[in-house]
Order: sequence, then structure tokens, then C-alpha cells
Amino acid sequence: MVGLRKAVTSDAARRAEAARREAANAEAVGRMTGADPVLIDVQAAGDVVPGMEANVILTSGPPMPWDQYYGGQRSAVISGAIYEGLASDEEDADARLRDGRIVLASTHDHGCVGSVAGIYTASMPVFVVRNSVRGNQSYCNFYEGESRHRLNYGSYNDDVRRGLDFIRDELAPVLQDVIGRSGGVPLKPIIGRALRMGDELHSRNTAATTLFIRELTPQFLDYAVDTSSERAQTALRFFFGSDYSFLRLSMAAAKAMADAARDVPGSSVVTAMTISCRNFAIRVSGLGDEWFLGPLPEVECKLFDGFTDDDVQWIGGESHITETVGLGGFAQAAAFGLQAYQGGSAAEMVAMNSRMYDITVAEHPDFLIPYFGFRGTPVGIDIFQVTATGTQPVIDGGLAGKGGGQIGAGILRAPLECFSAAAAAYSRRYG
Amino acid sequence: MVGLRKAVTSDAARRAEAARREAANAEAVGRMTGADPVLIDVQAAGDVVPGMEANVILTSGPPMPWDQYYGGQRSAVISGAIYEGLASDEEDADARLRDGRIVLASTHDHGCVGSVAGIYTASMPVFVVRNSVRGNQSYCNFYEGESRHRLNYGSYNDDVRRGLDFIRDELAPVLQDVIGRSGGVPLKPIIGRALRMGDELHSRNTAATTLFIRELTPQFLDYAVDTSSERAQTALRFFFGSDYSFLRLSMAAAKAMADAARDVPGSSVVTAMTISCRNFAIRVSGLGDEWFLGPLPEVECKLFDGFTDDDVQWIGGESHITETVGLGGFAQAAAFGLQAYQGGSAAEMVAMNSRMYDITVAEHPDFLIPYFGFRGTPVGIDIFQVTATGTQPVIDGGLAGKGGGQIGAGILRAPLECFSAAAAAYSRRYG
Repeated sequence: MVGLRKAVTSDAARRAEAARREAANAEAVGRMTGADPVLIDVQAAGDVVPGMEANVILTSGPPMPWDQYYGGQRSAVISGAIYEGLASDEEDADARLRDGRIVLASTHDHGCVGSVAGIYTASMPVFVVRNSVRGNQSYCNFYEGESRHRLNYGSYNDDVRRGLDFIRDELAPVLQDVIGRSGGVPLKPIIGRALRMGDELHSRNTAATTLFIRELTPQFLDYAVDTSSERAQTALRFFFGSDYSFLRLSMAAAKAMADAARDVPGSSVVTAMTISCRNFAIRVSGLGDEWFLGPLPEVECKLFDGFTDDDVQWIGGESHITETVGLGGFAQAAAFGLQAYQGGSAAEMVAMNSRMYDITVAEHPDFLIPYFGFRGTPVGIDIFQVTATGTQPVIDGGLAGKGGGQIGAGILRAPLECFSAAAAAYSRRYG
Repeated sequence: MVGLRKAVTSDAARRAEAARREAANAEAVGRMTGADPVLIDVQAAGDVVPGMEANVILTSGPPMPWDQYYGGQRSAVISGAIYEGLASDEEDADARLRDGRIVLASTHDHGCVGSVAGIYTASMPVFVVRNSVRGNQSYCNFYEGESRHRLNYGSYNDDVRRGLDFIRDELAPVLQDVIGRSGGVPLKPIIGRALRMGDELHSRNTAATTLFIRELTPQFLDYAVDTSSERAQTALRFFFGSDYSFLRLSMAAAKAMADAARDVPGSSVVTAMTISCRNFAIRVSGLGDEWFLGPLPEVECKLFDGFTDDDVQWIGGESHITETVGLGGFAQAAAFGLQAYQGGSAAEMVAMNSRMYDITVAEHPDFLIPYFGFRGTPVGIDIFQVTATGTQPVIDGGLAGKGGGQIGAGILRAPLECFSAAAAAYSRRYG
């Protein structure tokens, strides 16, 4: 009788625990999908990013000792130090990074998200996005333009430097002005609309880039009349010069939405995913700031002409904050045009997207997929659904090459090890 | 032996005839898909449309005696006469239309295409589109705005009149100026791109409208600085006020492409489809200017709230020039977002779109459908493939109501009778 009694109790306890977790996950995903990210400003990172002192450099990935960085991500950090004037050359930068005169930190710990290597220095302009529902702010620096060689892909030369100067000195002031005139640009309606126009807001941002400028065209006209027609034209040309311009805004918006779901006790919903040159890692709402590490992701990629699998090098990346909030790979059935960029077929995209419903706790109320009859995107990755099904989150990603620069794009699969590690930690904490 | 001889000859003759028709159709569809429509100007219809004298009114549909018009299309013609100052009231207009002081003609005979009733009067501004490959020009007047009540839907009141005045006096001059500054806007790249962004360019023009203004934003900035910031802002607000603004440009572009395929001897490819209040009609490349008539189309529609099937009234329509060149219903698998507007499901849209390959002679080299792995849209409707398969061309269309105004949207099916009549005429002409 005692044995039976115990079994019943344990069963009831399991049910109660499941109910508590379900409620916590509903709360977390509700905060995530209910967030209202608004672009309110452009500022120098040093003036607005919390803890962003003049000698701080941020990079993608969980915190890691300097000597663990290698290849393109190491080069990118060093180049960031040189660009910012914190070091005279590679050797000097290395010495300063070793002894802490230059402080290297993780973007996510400063409200930022990194694209690929994700280098932030204090003078770089960032978009400032505020979740008007909970007041949390997030930041993302600017897209560098169409060149294959960009600091965020580990490249640095005079062209890259001039490009960064242009962004800081010519593009950012115009955008700051027009955003100020607008009183703030709500990003969620643009994202929702872009999903009906073939974007998934990670590897495809064509519609969102156009809709964003459409939103600000009246202010651009006013700026041209009041201040400088030439600067307005130059800024527009640059922003329209790439269909990826909006990616940094979809990342900042996603970060603001994901952060809204942090720290809900008992929630097993993923609130961040990141990549460094060594690891893939995730954070979970009910497990605080801890990162749960796994190996680098598997990838099915379409490489640009002339490159092979051997040329791929991991140099960090956090743009899959979009997948964390139900965009990117979780919305790929909205963006069949991506086939041209990253390979695959419409049928495969539909199948991959559909499988994401198996590992998420909700369907997004505002991000809808026309092909699925306006079903909401799968949102709120649950670590236990991932470990139970063995289904890996899929990510639309760009790929960096050993020589620096982007060399392809494709589907990345988050490693199960992160989710198992997080599940074990959850069990330790919540029993 | 004589009998056998004759059969062989007849068989060979049939094969030769089929080969001739195939070659003619390849020529016709090649001219259609190879056309390069460029928006070159905005002008008053009376200044640029061939044969558009001050007392001429154009309307949708094949030519028809005035006393055959009824309902909304009749009201629209009379309202056009009053709006243009050609008549003082309905009775006066009717008298003048009867005795020929006002000349009523078909849009298609003047290089124009009509949206719904398709009323053109001499003072109305039109977009001027030129096929730079063959030099043929086409024209389309402007979208009247979001109101359910519009002259092209058979409505007329002070608001409609003020709306038309605004288009003529405030919108058209700004667009004329910025188009002039641009040196001409190639429309095919915008259309091709919009197909990758969820438009099918008939019932959905959201992306194309945005891309079009994106193309002209530098010129709008210059106009604001040089001429009038206020007029630039007003024009932008109106043009962006509706996602349908580009429809008139996709119609004019389609007309320029379709006209390029006219008059290829021996071709059985459709070069125009039109609707009046009494008939559906088609034109065929190898059969000159003759219209082949059938009954009004079948329709599966989603009506706006408060309307029933009994409220539907046919008042004309020629926007399905888009389907004639491989857009609209022939590209609906590019525009799953349309479900919200006209009903149906993604699976039905895919099935309908796929069936159009059975009745067309080519796949468009530049208009590609992402969902189909970038297969070209079906283009060049062959009257014999329609009669042989019994598959009716599908059209994404808006529906007019008896009380005037738009009351819904849906799928129209072109009646087989038009194609049988054309096939019979073809046989008479070509044996």
C-alpha cells in the first residue's frame, strides 16, 4: 500500500510540476510575443549601451578567455581594437587584451546582439530599440554594406575602415535625425507585414528594408529640405544599397522581445542562442544568465562560387536571436525566395518550418505565415520538447570563410547537447 | 491507293499546320515576354492617347451600342460625361451619347486598359508606358484611392469628383515631374521583384507599390527641395495610402507586353481579355482586332461583410490584362497572402496556378514563382489548349455591387465559349 501511495503521489507531483512549467512557459512566451519593440534612437554605443566603457569591445558568443579566441573572430576583435584606436597594431592589441587594458565582453551581457563576429566598440553607432510594454532596451550596430569583406565577417582593411567611418559619420547622423522626427518607428508591424512579403527577417529582409524606409520617407523629405539634401540622398542610397539593411533592426527587435521573456521562474523556454568560434550556447528563461554550451552547429550550406566546405570557419554569430522569437528558420515557409540564396526546395522549407511546431510552446499571434493559411509562426523553443523529440532548431545563417568575408549561406542546426545540458540544470534547480 | 495517299497527305498537312502554329505562337509569346515596358511620362489622356478627342469617353469591354449598356457601367459612362463637362446631367448625357455628340469607344482600341468600368475622359491623367523593344505605347489612368466608392466601380458623388480632381491637379503633376527627373522607370524589374515579395500584380500590389516609390525616392527628395515639399508629401501620402496604387502600372505594363504580341499571322495566343456589363471577350494574335464573345465569367468570391451573391453586378473590367501576360491568377502561387482578400487556401492556389501551364505555350523567362522553385509563370494562353483541355483561364478579380462600389473579390473563370468561337474563326482563316 505504501508503494502504491508513493507512486500516486509521485505521479501527482509530476503532473503538478508539468502544470507549473506550462504556466511559466505561457508567461514567458506571452511576454515575448506581447513585446512591442520600437526604434527610438541612434546613438554611439559608448553613450547608450550599459557598461560600454571606452576600452570595452563586445563580441558574439558566451564569455570566454581571450586566449581561447582564434581565426576570424580573434582577428575581428583585434581589428576592432585598432579601428577604435585602443591599440596600434595586432601585437599591441593582443597584449592589452591579455592584461585587461582592453576589456572583451559578450554582447548579450550588454543588451546587444552580434552579427557573425559581432564586434562593438564604443564609437560605433547603434540602433536603440525599446520594448514599450516592459521598458527593456536592446541595441544593434549597423550593417556594413554589400562587400564580402566586413569587420563582422573578420575582414579588415582600408575599405572596411572607410566603410565603418562612413556609417558613423554620415549614415548614423541622418538616421538619428529622421528617427527623431518620426517620434519612433514601431518595428513589429513592419516585421509582421514583411512576413507577408517574402521575408523571414533573418536571411531575407528585402521587404522589411523597403517598408522601413517607406515609413521614414516623409521624414527623409523634411531632412532634405531642412538640413541637407545631399546627406539624405547618400544615406538613402546606402540603406537601399542592400536588402539586408533591416537585419540589424530585426535583430534588435528580436533581442528586445527575447529579453522580455527572461527570468520567469520555472520556464524552460530558450531566450537566447549564440555562437562563438568554439561553441554554440543557449540561455533559458528560468535558468538566469547561465549559458549552456554545445559543439558548433551542423550546417547544410550553399557556398558562393569557388569555395568548398573546407573554407568554412566559425567566427561567432547571434543573428539567430530571430529564430529565438519565431522568425528566420522558424518562418522560412514565408520566404520561398530564400532558395536562391541558401539552396533547398520549397517542400523542404515547409517541412523544416513545420517541424518547429514540435519544439515550441506557442504560435505567434502577430507573425503569420501566409502559406500556412496565416498560422502563427512557432515560437518559444522549449528545451524539454527539443530533448524529447530530438528535433533540432533550424537557423537560416550566413557562413564566414577562413580568409575572412562571407562565403555562403545555409541551414544551421542547433546542437542537442546545449538543450540536454540546460535540461539537466533545470532538473537540478527545479527537481 | 488514292484513299491512302489522301490520308497521308492530310496527316502531313496537319503536322505542317501544327508546326506553323507552334512557330507563330513562339514568335508571339517571345514578343510578349521579351517586351520591356518603361514608364516614361504622365500626361492628360487627351494629349497623348491616340484618337482621344475632347468628346471621347472610353470604357471597358468590346465595342457595343450605347443602348446595350445598363446598370453600373451605364452610370459610370454618364458620370464620366458629367465629370468631364460634356453633359449637364444624366438626361443630357444620354441624349449626347445616343446622337454621337459624345463618342463612346473601347479602351483597348486606344492603347488603354480599364479597371472595372474603366472610364477615361480627355482631361484624366494617364501613365504612359513604352515597350522599348518594339516602341508600342500603352496607357492607364490612376487608381482613385481606397474608398469603396469610385468612378471605376460605377459610383459618383462629390467625394468621387473631388478625388478625381485631386488626382488630376495635385497627384499627376508631381508624378509627372519625378518620373521626368528619373528618365523613365523600367517596370519589368519591379514586377519580377514583386513576384518574389508576395505580389501577383493583379489583386496584390503591395510590394510593387513600395518598390516603385523606392525607385523614385531620390527624385521625390529633389522635387521636395526644388519645388514643393508639401506637394511631394501629399503625393507620397496618397500613393502609399493604398497598396493598390501600382495596379494601374502593372496593367499598363501588361498592355504594352500583350500588344507586342498582336498580329502574328497564324498565332493562336490570346492578346487581350475583356469584360463589359454583357460579355466576356478575347482577342487572338493571329486573328486581328476581332473580339470573340462569350457569357459573363463564373466566379468564386469572398464578399465584404453585409453583401450576398445577389448584390454582384458586372460593370466591365480589363485588369485581367495581367493574366494575359502571365501575372495575376497565373502567378497566384507567388501571392499566398491573397487568401485573406479573396478566400481559398494555399493548396487551391497552387493547384489553380499549376493548371494554367496546361493552357499556355511558354514559361516566362523573367516572371518567376519562388514556391515553384523559380519556375517561370505560365504565359501565352493558347485558344486550342483551352478548348482541348476544357481548362478555363483563372483571374484574380474585384467585384462590383449593384449599388456601386466594390463589394468583394475572388476567382473569375473565363468562359469557354470565347475560346471555341476564336478556334472556329481561326479554322476558317487558316484552314
